Amino acid sequence: MKRTLYDYLKEYSDSEMYPFHMPGHKRNPHSGPLSEFYSLDITEIDGFDNLHQPESIIKDAQERAASLYQSEETFYLVNGSTSGILSAISAVAGADKRLIIARNCHKAVYHAAFLNRMRLHYVYPEIYEEYDIAGEVKAVQIDREIKSILRDETIEAADANKKIAGVVITSPTYDGIVSDVVEIADVVHHYGIPLIVDQAHGAHFGFHPAYPENAVRQGADIVIHSVHKTLSAPTQTALLHRNGNLIDREMLTKYLRIYQSSSPSYLLMAGIDEAMQFVTESGFQRLDELLNLRLKIEEKAKNFCHIRVCPLTEPGKLIISVKNTSLTGKVLHEVLRKKYHLQMEMAAGSYVIAILSMMDTEKGINRLLTALQEIDQSLSDMPAKQIVSPMLNIRPEKSMELCDAYHLAYERINAKDAKNRIVAEFVNLYPPGIPILVPGEVISKQILDLMEDYQKNGYTVQGIEHQELKVINI
Amino acid sequence: MKRTLYDYLKEYSDSEMYPFHMPGHKRNPHSGPLSEFYSLDITEIDGFDNLHQPESIIKDAQERAASLYQSEETFYLVNGSTSGILSAISAVAGADKRLIIARNCHKAVYHAAFLNRMRLHYVYPEIYEEYDIAGEVKAVQIDREIKSILRDETIEAADANKKIAGVVITSPTYDGIVSDVVEIADVVHHYGIPLIVDQAHGAHFGFHPAYPENAVRQGADIVIHSVHKTLSAPTQTALLHRNGNLIDREMLTKYLRIYQSSSPSYLLMAGIDEAMQFVTESGFQRLDELLNLRLKIEEKAKNFCHIRVCPLTEPGKLIISVKNTSLTGKVLHEVLRKKYHLQMEMAAGSYVIAILSMMDTEKGINRLLTALQEIDQSLSDMPAKQIVSPMLNIRPEKSMELCDAYHLAYERINAKDAKNRIVAEFVNLYPPGIPILVPGEVISKQILDLMEDYQKNGYTVQGIEHQELKVINI
Repeated sequence: MKRTLYDYLKEYSDSEMYPFHMPGHKRNPHSGPLSEFYSLDITEIDGFDNLHQPESIIKDAQERAASLYQSEETFYLVNGSTSGILSAISAVAGADKRLIIARNCHKAVYHAAFLNRMRLHYVYPEIYEEYDIAGEVKAVQIDREIKSILRDETIEAADANKKIAGVVITSPTYDGIVSDVVEIADVVHHYGIPLIVDQAHGAHFGFHPAYPENAVRQGADIVIHSVHKTLSAPTQTALLHRNGNLIDREMLTKYLRIYQSSSPSYLLMAGIDEAMQFVTESGFQRLDELLNLRLKIEEKAKNFCHIRVCPLTEPGKLIISVKNTSLTGKVLHEVLRKKYHLQMEMAAGSYVIAILSMMDTEKGINRLLTALQEIDQSLSDMPAKQIVSPMLNIRPEKSMELCDAYHLAYERINAKDAKNRIVAEFVNLYPPGIPILVPGEVISKQILDLMEDYQKNGYTVQGIEHQELKVINI
Repeated sequence: MKRTLYDYLKEYSDSEMYPFHMPGHKRNPHSGPLSEFYSLDITEIDGFDNLHQPESIIKDAQERAASLYQSEETFYLVNGSTSGILSAISAVAGADKRLIIARNCHKAVYHAAFLNRMRLHYVYPEIYEEYDIAGEVKAVQIDREIKSILRDETIEAADANKKIAGVVITSPTYDGIVSDVVEIADVVHHYGIPLIVDQAHGAHFGFHPAYPENAVRQGADIVIHSVHKTLSAPTQTALLHRNGNLIDREMLTKYLRIYQSSSPSYLLMAGIDEAMQFVTESGFQRLDELLNLRLKIEEKAKNFCHIRVCPLTEPGKLIISVKNTSLTGKVLHEVLRKKYHLQMEMAAGSYVIAILSMMDTEKGINRLLTALQEIDQSLSDMPAKQIVSPMLNIRPEKSMELCDAYHLAYERINAKDAKNRIVAEFVNLYPPGIPILVPGEVISKQILDLMEDYQKNGYTVQGIEHQELKVINI
């Protein structure tokens, strides 16, 4: 029976060893209400390993994770998927290279491009109007983008990797939409370019035939998994998987050391290890039970008159749509929370998202089902409320590269005076977290109107404060 | 009675609210041995705040920390002091600017200079031969360095801040040596340059007259405190304090968002808040008790025949010196651990370091005292073992800037063939963690001999693997 990091921590905690080392709480029970956790909270001392140069128990734990995901190599992340994305992109970055990303990538992808002074090229996800959600990105779109860069640089396909550092996509999306990683990897590798898949929301993939396959086994060179989002690990924990020979391992580990604390929490690392154990022992069975619960929801939902469950997502994401009903996502979110004490993950204009995981209980799912039935019955057939779709059918004009614009001096001006100015700060729409504007892009009339609509419809538009936008001072 | 983050987490955990949101463990008690902690582990949901845009309970918590340290503004860090150092230096960095740092700064300082393509200038700490430890850095050294840059750039003192981004020092050092921050701040501010103090090991300063004053109140523009090192917070937590008008707040917060997880752990944040509460309520009394315990140790140590306690450190660091005895630091470390079950923080060539915190118990201190008495009595007067001092009386020649060298292709060659080559990777001496060589510096015969001595004397030399060094491929 292999021992987990928790076993080692417990053993040390139970020993009579007195700590004249960090952390300063000294496992003292008088450290307050969290002191019980602290009994397991240590740092690199004799017998314990160093995340940044693993040689014993952390090395073993990472190898257990690698074999679970069938990855050549896996790294624990204690600074979230954020640190994995920063490290992955920094590892492939080169002077003045281009990076092709899905426009709906996480902001950490944009941050990495900024830190590494890279030129960004966007692939825009499809749009599923019926549910107001962003869809997948297609291999053909990426191929088109690569070819246009080759033309622009007037270089041969064989030299593509000299100018294009990599391709980054998010699969599944926050909404649970999966792209065809196999096909995309084929296209990208044809040019000798690495594929980085932000699979933060798909750490549970590949363990049950009814769920999507894992990007590690679909040919991605780097895959990043948040293990706190859909598995039973604590918040802020993640994994980075490296495969193939397109990634310089030394560069990758260099940046993993740079972007993560030199005092990584053993509690977080032990949490990752326990989650891996749990999936290894009970993953299939738990995912199977979750699948049945979800099918039960979909079955019942067939009889709903107004509320719909989106069939396009992976089983772990439940998109409850109230599009074309008398409800809005925000109202549904509030009713579920206040009346039924069910806390959803997020409310969009015309839907709410519930995250389902292998740790959900039948009781919890039944409470949701009962609530949705009652709400659906209570809905009148009154004319549908028109909600602006969160879909970004816009292609902002890029006036400067992010890496240049995000450094420049700016001023705050009222949004209504910002027409045709160059934006100096990200303007993000939550949900779904897609940037409306990236620093360096032009604020068009159309975009200003769109932002106004979003705010009227109760979306959060990050980057506007008191109706003011940051614009570059030129 | 103000409510802490823990109070809010407990309240939510005790409510009958069912989570259809992250984290995926869903506070399910079957999540394994850590599930009890998970009952308090949530993410940004209704009623909870966002570390990267704090408006309610995190904002209040950060303000409690700010008032405790009398700082204008304080930020919680969940990616350790590392993320604070990266953010602070990135916030002051400018194209091709210089950064003056103490050579014994933490590696995160070097990483930040690399990420921001800055040119590094070093101030070397004094050396306390009697105890083989690095000492303080002096204001006059920093003034000299600034003046030499002004001459080099042929600019006036008034324009110093156009070329010099900032000055970074570590006070206290890992060994517990404090520099005169007031004097250094005066010199640096005379040129309009910001002072960043890495006070990771001094979060307990300023709460008791017998301990050093806190750098926040000594005029530093940014101070970084690890709250897990000397206070009762969990590993990987820290604080960043911003004061004065030399730091661009927008730039600072931009980088804090970039270098930290977008899913910060509420457990870690609650741990910081509890530690702040603890210091507020019991800090003075606890530090007073610790002081008495330390004085007791020093009193008894006066009668030791061989072992000495270094009187130069702040009270929280106990340097137990066996210099010129028949023992080495490593052996003392092992005897304390194996025979007495006392785990020290670290063993150096001629001493061990014990970290004392306000959470230490009289029982624990007495165990150490008894052990030291027994060991001291057991020591013969046999001729002292000669240990090479870890002091770097060397000034490596810089052939390239770190930011240029750390990108270049390299090869691995045997150390004995590396003479006069340019090193491509950091070579660090642990302890005390001072870089022997920074990428871009020349590997001299003297340095090669020194590294060999260190290894013979049981030091860890990071950057040499199987006697091979990474050298730049030119």
